[in-house]
Amino acid sequence: MSKFITFEGCEGSGKSTQVALFKEYLEKKGAKYIFLREPGGTDISEKIRNVILDVSNSEMTDETEALLYASARAQLISQKILPSLKNGTLVFCDRYIDSSFAYQSYARGLGLEFVKKINSYAIENCMPDYTVFLNISPTEAFKRKGGVDKDDRLELSGADFHEKVYSGYLALAKENPDRFIMIDCSGSKWQTHEKIVKELEKRGVL
Amino acid sequence: MSKFITFEGCEGSGKSTQVALFKEYLEKKGAKYIFLREPGGTDISEKIRNVILDVSNSEMTDETEALLYASARAQLISQKILPSLKNGTLVFCDRYIDSSFAYQSYARGLGLEFVKKINSYAIENCMPDYTVFLNISPTEAFKRKGGVDKDDRLELSGADFHEKVYSGYLALAKENPDRFIMIDCSGSKWQTHEKIVKELEKRGVL
Repeated sequence: MSKFITFEGCEGSGKSTQVALFKEYLEKKGAKYIFLREPGGTDISEKIRNVILDVSNSEMTDETEALLYASARAQLISQKILPSLKNGTLVFCDRYIDSSFAYQSYARGLGLEFVKKINSYAIENCMPDYTVFLNISPTEAFKRKGGVDKDDRLELSGADFHEKVYSGYLALAKENPDRFIMIDCSGSKWQTHEKIVKELEKRGVL
Repeated sequence: MSKFITFEGCEGSGKSTQVALFKEYLEKKGAKYIFLREPGGTDISEKIRNVILDVSNSEMTDETEALLYASARAQLISQKILPSLKNGTLVFCDRYIDSSFAYQSYARGLGLEFVKKINSYAIENCMPDYTVFLNISPTEAFKRKGGVDKDDRLELSGADFHEKVYSGYLALAKENPDRFIMIDCSGSKWQTHEKIVKELEKRGVL
């Protein structure tokens, strides 16, 4: 079995930039890898993603949303993650189960128990070996980004919500100190990128 | 709180016909009611229904399918079933949680435990008072219907599958004798309709 690494962070944490830089790095290195994203990564999961992120679905309940994320995840695990790990491919994923815990359990208030139940398939079959967490507070993150994206239902949720997400991630990191890799993002994007590479090299992933 | 009644049966059991006759009956009676269907019944749930029933999604795993049903159900409960019951409306639903148990736990082999976990929101917040089960074996049902519907992914699953669904329903009925109303469908559609009305009247629903 190969390694499974997830990238997590709050909105505006620079995750997309770091994911792009990391993909370039993997390409240059000639690594055998696959880089997925959540929700999405398979045709079916992308269709589910469209339902989740559709701004017109403003009546969506938190439970429905959490179940949709879990369904897109189950498809991704069976169709992409497990087969890739089995054939020796390094698997990276932009967001995974910790996003459900941070956003749904902590920020939306669904609690850990409900989210654990509906994600039992992921928990029992496919947990990440390591989770790269871009550790930057939402206040600082939004300041850098220069505002919210009005086309994304999730980003319209407000500052309080994002503070709760961040607290959720910190709680998860505390509960999973061996899995979480905390990345200080106070430097330039290149400095952050180098930190990520160094931490993964140290753990024998790269 | 008003009453919540579900209709269940195997493919070809005449459920659609009985649902149509029952709606006519409710209209004539001038009952205050709402008749929903699963998966569906809200804009969001109908979008999820489209993903579930799309024939092109042949790679969908059983876990993904089960989670999508649960997500459409969670939305239906919050947006339609609970508010209707609270304002004194009789709520009927064509398929509900027993379909997940029969199709997913029993026929697809996901087991009761997994389906119970992902349907915990429905189980904890909104179980039917009564479930009308159209008790006819798949062999007899398909004979009546004259073949399968090629545009529906679920109906393409074959005879073995439908036998397992039927056995699943019988097991559920045995476990929930007070909730399940077993309707013998060997007579004409009108006789079956009269049996349903009589059984619901007997329980003070109508």
